[in-house]
Amino acid sequence: MSKHKVLILHGPNLNLLGRREPEVYGKKTLADIDRLIKERAAVLEIQVAAFQSNYEGQLIDRIQDARGNYDGILINPGALTHYSYSLRDALTAAGLPLVEVHLSNIFAREEFRQHSVISPVASGVICGFGATGYLLGLDALLAVIKER
Amino acid sequence: MSKHKVLILHGPNLNLLGRREPEVYGKKTLADIDRLIKERAAVLEIQVAAFQSNYEGQLIDRIQDARGNYDGILINPGALTHYSYSLRDALTAAGLPLVEVHLSNIFAREEFRQHSVISPVASGVICGFGATGYLLGLDALLAVIKER
Amino acid sequence: MSKHKVLILHGPNLNLLGRREPEVYGKKTLADIDRLIKERAAVLEIQVAAFQSNYEGQLIDRIQDARGNYDGILINPGALTHYSYSLRDALTAAGLPLVEVHLSNIFAREEFRQHSVISPVASGVICGFGATGYLLGLDALLAVIKER
Amino acid sequence: MSKHKVLILHGPNLNLLGRREPEVYGKKTLADIDRLIKERAAVLEIQVAAFQSNYEGQLIDRIQDARGNYDGILINPGALTHYSYSLRDALTAAGLPLVEVHLSNIFAREEFRQHSVISPVASGVICGFGATGYLLGLDALLAVIKER
Amino acid sequence: MSKHKVLILHGPNLNLLGRREPEVYGKKTLADIDRLIKERAAVLEIQVAAFQSNYEGQLIDRIQDARGNYDGILINPGALTHYSYSLRDALTAAGLPLVEVHLSNIFAREEFRQHSVISPVASGVICGFGATGYLLGLDALLAVIKER
Amino acid sequence: MSKHKVLILHGPNLNLLGRREPEVYGKKTLADIDRLIKERAAVLEIQVAAFQSNYEGQLIDRIQDARGNYDGILINPGALTHYSYSLRDALTAAGLPLVEVHLSNIFAREEFRQHSVISPVASGVICGFGATGYLLGLDALLAVIKER
Amino acid sequence: MSKHKVLILHGPNLNLLGRREPEVYGKKTLADIDRLIKERAAVLEIQVAAFQSNYEGQLIDRIQDARGNYDGILINPGALTHYSYSLRDALTAAGLPLVEVHLSNIFAREEFRQHSVISPVASGVICGFGATGYLLGLDALLAVIKER
Amino acid sequence: MSKHKVLILHGPNLNLLGRREPEVYGKKTLADIDRLIKERAAVLEIQVAAFQSNYEGQLIDRIQDARGNYDGILINPGALTHYSYSLRDALTAAGLPLVEVHLSNIFAREEFRQHSVISPVASGVICGFGATGYLLGLDALLAVIKER
Amino acid sequence: MSKHKVLILHGPNLNLLGRREPEVYGKKTLADIDRLIKERAAVLEIQVAAFQSNYEGQLIDRIQDARGNYDGILINPGALTHYSYSLRDALTAAGLPLVEVHLSNIFAREEFRQHSVISPVASGVICGFGATGYLLGLDALLAVIKER
Amino acid sequence: MSKHKVLILHGPNLNLLGRREPEVYGKKTLADIDRLIKERAAVLEIQVAAFQSNYEGQLIDRIQDARGNYDGILINPGALTHYSYSLRDALTAAGLPLVEVHLSNIFAREEFRQHSVISPVASGVICGFGATGYLLGLDALLAVIKER
Amino acid sequence: MSKHKVLILHGPNLNLLGRREPEVYGKKTLADIDRLIKERAAVLEIQVAAFQSNYEGQLIDRIQDARGNYDGILINPGALTHYSYSLRDALTAAGLPLVEVHLSNIFAREEFRQHSVISPVASGVICGFGATGYLLGLDALLAVIKER
Amino acid sequence: MSKHKVLILHGPNLNLLGRREPEVYGKKTLADIDRLIKERAAVLEIQVAAFQSNYEGQLIDRIQDARGNYDGILINPGALTHYSYSLRDALTAAGLPLVEVHLSNIFAREEFRQHSVISPVASGVICGFGATGYLLGLDALLAVIKER
Repeated sequence: MSKHKVLILHGPNLNLLGRREPEVYGKKTLADIDRLIKERAAVLEIQVAAFQSNYEGQLIDRIQDARGNYDGILINPGALTHYSYSLRDALTAAGLPLVEVHLSNIFAREEFRQHSVISPVASGVICGFGATGYLLGLDALLAVIKER
Repeated sequence: MSKHKVLILHGPNLNLLGRREPEVYGKKTLADIDRLIKERAAVLEIQVAAFQSNYEGQLIDRIQDARGNYDGILINPGALTHYSYSLRDALTAAGLPLVEVHLSNIFAREEFRQHSVISPVASGVICGFGATGYLLGLDALLAVIKER
Repeated sequence: MSKHKVLILHGPNLNLLGRREPEVYGKKTLADIDRLIKERAAVLEIQVAAFQSNYEGQLIDRIQDARGNYDGILINPGALTHYSYSLRDALTAAGLPLVEVHLSNIFAREEFRQHSVISPVASGVICGFGATGYLLGLDALLAVIKER
Repeated sequence: MSKHKVLILHGPNLNLLGRREPEVYGKKTLADIDRLIKERAAVLEIQVAAFQSNYEGQLIDRIQDARGNYDGILINPGALTHYSYSLRDALTAAGLPLVEVHLSNIFAREEFRQHSVISPVASGVICGFGATGYLLGLDALLAVIKER
Repeated sequence: MSKHKVLILHGPNLNLLGRREPEVYGKKTLADIDRLIKERAAVLEIQVAAFQSNYEGQLIDRIQDARGNYDGILINPGALTHYSYSLRDALTAAGLPLVEVHLSNIFAREEFRQHSVISPVASGVICGFGATGYLLGLDALLAVIKER
Repeated sequence: MSKHKVLILHGPNLNLLGRREPEVYGKKTLADIDRLIKERAAVLEIQVAAFQSNYEGQLIDRIQDARGNYDGILINPGALTHYSYSLRDALTAAGLPLVEVHLSNIFAREEFRQHSVISPVASGVICGFGATGYLLGLDALLAVIKER
Repeated sequence: MSKHKVLILHGPNLNLLGRREPEVYGKKTLADIDRLIKERAAVLEIQVAAFQSNYEGQLIDRIQDARGNYDGILINPGALTHYSYSLRDALTAAGLPLVEVHLSNIFAREEFRQHSVISPVASGVICGFGATGYLLGLDALLAVIKER
Repeated sequence: MSKHKVLILHGPNLNLLGRREPEVYGKKTLADIDRLIKERAAVLEIQVAAFQSNYEGQLIDRIQDARGNYDGILINPGALTHYSYSLRDALTAAGLPLVEVHLSNIFAREEFRQHSVISPVASGVICGFGATGYLLGLDALLAVIKER
Repeated sequence: MSKHKVLILHGPNLNLLGRREPEVYGKKTLADIDRLIKERAAVLEIQVAAFQSNYEGQLIDRIQDARGNYDGILINPGALTHYSYSLRDALTAAGLPLVEVHLSNIFAREEFRQHSVISPVASGVICGFGATGYLLGLDALLAVIKER
Repeated sequence: MSKHKVLILHGPNLNLLGRREPEVYGKKTLADIDRLIKERAAVLEIQVAAFQSNYEGQLIDRIQDARGNYDGILINPGALTHYSYSLRDALTAAGLPLVEVHLSNIFAREEFRQHSVISPVASGVICGFGATGYLLGLDALLAVIKER
Repeated sequence: MSKHKVLILHGPNLNLLGRREPEVYGKKTLADIDRLIKERAAVLEIQVAAFQSNYEGQLIDRIQDARGNYDGILINPGALTHYSYSLRDALTAAGLPLVEVHLSNIFAREEFRQHSVISPVASGVICGFGATGYLLGLDALLAVIKER
Repeated sequence: MSKHKVLILHGPNLNLLGRREPEVYGKKTLADIDRLIKERAAVLEIQVAAFQSNYEGQLIDRIQDARGNYDGILINPGALTHYSYSLRDALTAAGLPLVEVHLSNIFAREEFRQHSVISPVASGVICGFGATGYLLGLDALLAVIKER
């Protein structure tokens, strides 16, 4: 039986994790997080592919390619969360189960961070749990995929 | 070594789960959810106590008693989410790790449901994954407790 | 043939009727109003049960019990009208014909009184006719029940 | 003893009733409603005259003529509800008991329909009960007239 | 030398003057006001024609006819002041000196009366001086006409 | 085979075209535009009837009569665009393909002109192309009619 | 001569005083504050009764009972300050001199704390002086009572 | 018989008239305007005293002294119009007939100029007629004084 | 031991007390209030100096001089309360305990009076108790000074 | 005589047409649309070049290159419509006739889709006619180009 | 050849520099800053005169005198920045090159500090560079003067 | 001693300088500006590298690389100023002294240009001085770097 396949997307500036404001975003690097995700994916018996970009266009390209190739998307859109309706449209068009993750609790930060243009088209949202949030997100996404 | 203890709180109308708008909130009853939580708690080796109330005052009483007796709180505040600053103050005063869970994706619903007065004082938020969200929330809460 | 049964709910401070700002709310007491309602119910050949509470939680409890036991609800939510999304959720979950009544014309009063969080889930709204409004509401509710 | 006289006013597009979005406004035509009103008026022993217009100006003319000739006005202003301050001023100037009726529950519809510029100068408001709302409105208006 | 010609326009409900809320609008009837205007016009040696309508459309027709036939317009738009962009467009198109008059001080009344959609296209505005305001308006309009 | 029939409606002040602010609305008169429309209609083999009014009520009357007599409506509502919910309701009730046209680019003008209460019930909108916009609108309307 | 009687009301979470965010609310417990109030009351020769509740409903019950039994009310509504229109209505209905006290300066805190729905119906407001504020409030209330 | 006495007040920057943006404010200097006012006052048989200041405090001092010494105030508050609640309070306290004048049509200018904090406490407002506005204002003020 | 020294500041128009709207501000003159303050100061064994000005600039000068010369400031900023960020900055710069007093309950008045730009930098606020409010304010200020 | 040259630009996600929510955007693919455009261009005797990108930067590059090489631009900016001020600036700088096209009627969709940052700098806008809109847009653009 | 002359204006509370919140405004006194400005002016070969006032009126007086006597104005309006439309009008009337300077980065502070009523009439704005900002402002102002 | 190194970043469309709306942005090309910057850098003895891109992603890449390689950043974000929270996050993460420059006075232009999402994380802002602004910005940045 073939495994479920999940696309992990990291938005702008997430390649800086570990270096960037560690008191907000934690000390783990993106490589650390991707490794943790893969370990968890192994336990859950799913395949994952991870991609980071500072380009809205590249993220959209990847999301468009996901249709038919993946069973779900786990995304931390970075600051695109707050204005990228293009990203949102791409995610809607993909028509896949979608989990939105944020490292920090965006509701306890600046006002502009408390609004996500992505959330209305996501299956669900997880925020505030640092790197752990990605693992919870993977669990959640798998549950959504199976429920379909 | 003593186990971690977690208080599970369900706000107004959550006792109706399974009967109330199942297309929004799912078919599982609150008893089903509490049983799932207890099974997961057993796996995680933590103790849980669950409480539901339609009274803001009773929820506040329980939260006040939690200080010193529990290591964290997992709450689905129901519709109190959107206006109960009293609940928020009680949670702040408790000073415990706090995870806020919602069954539905509140960001894809009516505008008034998209604002939570609780989120700014929570450790993190999980929404949109139905009953699974409670289990993810328990995992998340344990991670927050351990990190302290 | 069994009669239709209707639950009459009075929100906070409505037990003060007759004493409280009579120039706004009229001189009839809540007992007077309940007696008028019962007289009218007798004429309409329906059964009514009336309940007043200053506790949002108690009102929610009663609404939850109404499902299966009553054919419709007539409610004057008092000031809960303006903020109690919990009451609203209980009424939605009850899934019964629902008529919202206000003694005064709330649209001719302070701005905060001009918005009801209950109205969007009611069958209809009647306001501004004092005690008469309850009797009109009973007529209206019966019409809604029969139309189902 | 002379009977009370009531003016019934129907605003723009209400002449389309029965044909126009029947799932929202019901299947009864305006003629059906006027007949129901007259039957009820006969029971209540009051005289009624009904008038519909798509012209704000004609409605204002009629309202101006009502002073001294009628004891009260029952109005469904149609979409003028939401912007016609001229209609409002005419109704205020008439100085008569005034009941505002809407067929649908305007609070459960588009946002612009949830605000009435007429309500602050009405005695009371009834909405959401279809054709029945007019009959309730007539009862209510008579009560207001008698109370004067 | 031919006299200047001025069109006096009275909007909806101004035909009720003297009867309508005299504590707000004064005791003079529209006929009284038109007589005062004509007396003043005689002194100023200008011709005036006065017209009242409850129909936005009739007022627009008259304004359209004014171009070429009058040297200026003095208007009290009544409640159309607050929403009739059609009236505004007609006045702009007329391209004539324009004075806007209100009997009451609209800035000391309900909030909706404090905004005029006409003022931005008027030469100037006079409000709060009752019938006297029309006479001041006539003086002002003549000054604007002469200054051209 | 009978031809498609289209009703062309021009709102308040459009009878002034050519004279009114030609730098904004162009030099063509309404007669010029109606002739261009008819020429184009001849090419498209459709019948058109054109009507202009400064009265909201007259426009509503015409729209109500269109049902059953026309296959679509092409409307430039003039300034009624910005506040006439009555016109909107009439257009909704007509249930016909509807194209909204504006001569100028309303989005490059005053803020109040940038909101249309008609657009949400139109099939589509065309603005900014002067008289040409009507011809494009006719083409568009025919396409919508055929697609039904 | 009988002494003046004053009802002291403490809203939700005020039973936590001394434990809860002492840098904001001070180190005195509610018992400390009640003792200070009683000492001051003895000096002022007035009787006081103090009551705390986490239930909006219980506070309303007490306020309703105050009418006729007390000469004034001193209240710190806790977070109910910001949304409980039911509490406000109860206080209005009581018709007694009313002083609103807050321990912290609510105007120097989160935005939601800067608006009180209670203040418009209070005689006056005192905030920012910690436990001392209650004593000042008692003095103020006595002055208001005597002035009646 | 003693003459009526009127205080003329000019706010900040009005001493620059004639020099300052003559296309907006006209070519007449403040001295020109004061001379015109005096000529008109002579005709009306009233006494006037005129005062200009760039200091809010000086204007308030003068207004306070007006009580008992003058029968009315004619003021052009300059830009204080838009924010000086202190000036407003002084004018309210004076308790005299008050006419507010602006040289330009403030409703056709920047948005911040379209709101006056003074207007709600004035008898009436005149704007857009340049220096003539002062003369109209004097006429208006005299009418208000006589009507008292 | 040297006494504490307190600066009392009265903003614009407060010199009119007793004369100005006595139903709002009371019948006591500013001299009466200053005498009451001094009597109370004598009891509290503190020194006070009182100063009133209609000039924002003079009040700022006095506040700047207070640093090092006084132990605290008691201010009723009059209408400057609502817009004088300059006064606020001066008070912040003074770095002294600060009590803001208002004679009337500003929260029960016009909307613009319900917002104070001073409150966020005050130690606390007292309003609604007339002249008594100053005496309470002095007590409060002394408490704040001693607590430092 | 050389032909007019037009640049056709498609924004993010428009490469998905035909696959993406066909009930909203239609069944035609972008290739289908480009072919239709070319056929129409042949009829109109103009040259067209079409380009799609998910990168805001690439679209800007193309727009910058258009100056001097093309006579007009036809753009469907996709979701960039709602926030890309950079795209807007590029289009303004190009200084070419500009037609904005949307497949769906954006005014009948989510609120965020009802505001375009591009429209104020376009010659005109066409929306709601699916693929036909592009052809109408080409006609419109040619008319604008010729009118220059 | 005569030197350029520049007026330096410091608004309310800037005389406190060095003492007032040095972590925000720096340790340099106003005398230090004026000396630095003069040194720089010597290098630039321009004349400067500096003036500080806590009185809006005095600043306006000085600005009015600047016309004809100075070639440009460098102003730090202090907190008047946020509300003094009178200062703005004076600066507009002066018609001189105008540079607005702020010591702190006002966009990183309280929300009310992020809006300047002066900026729209300035040539340019410099903020966030402490005392250095004045020197940069002098350079900038000279460049603007020369460009004229 | 090694020189300070500064990264100069130009956002979208700035490569068009000299060609694009020269009355707003000046006649200098970007090459002209970069040359002026380099000349000034030589005088200041600092190294500069300049980079322009129409891609948000490329700008973010460059900013990420700046950490450790540069001592400060001088940026004109172009229209990204108004919405690119991704750019802002990159700049925050870089943790370097940051000066934001705009050629035009953005506060005197369209409303959307008056808000910068970048300013709150900049050291300071300079706008309105054309190409000179870059040179002032370089001076300012050097001052900030040295102050660290």
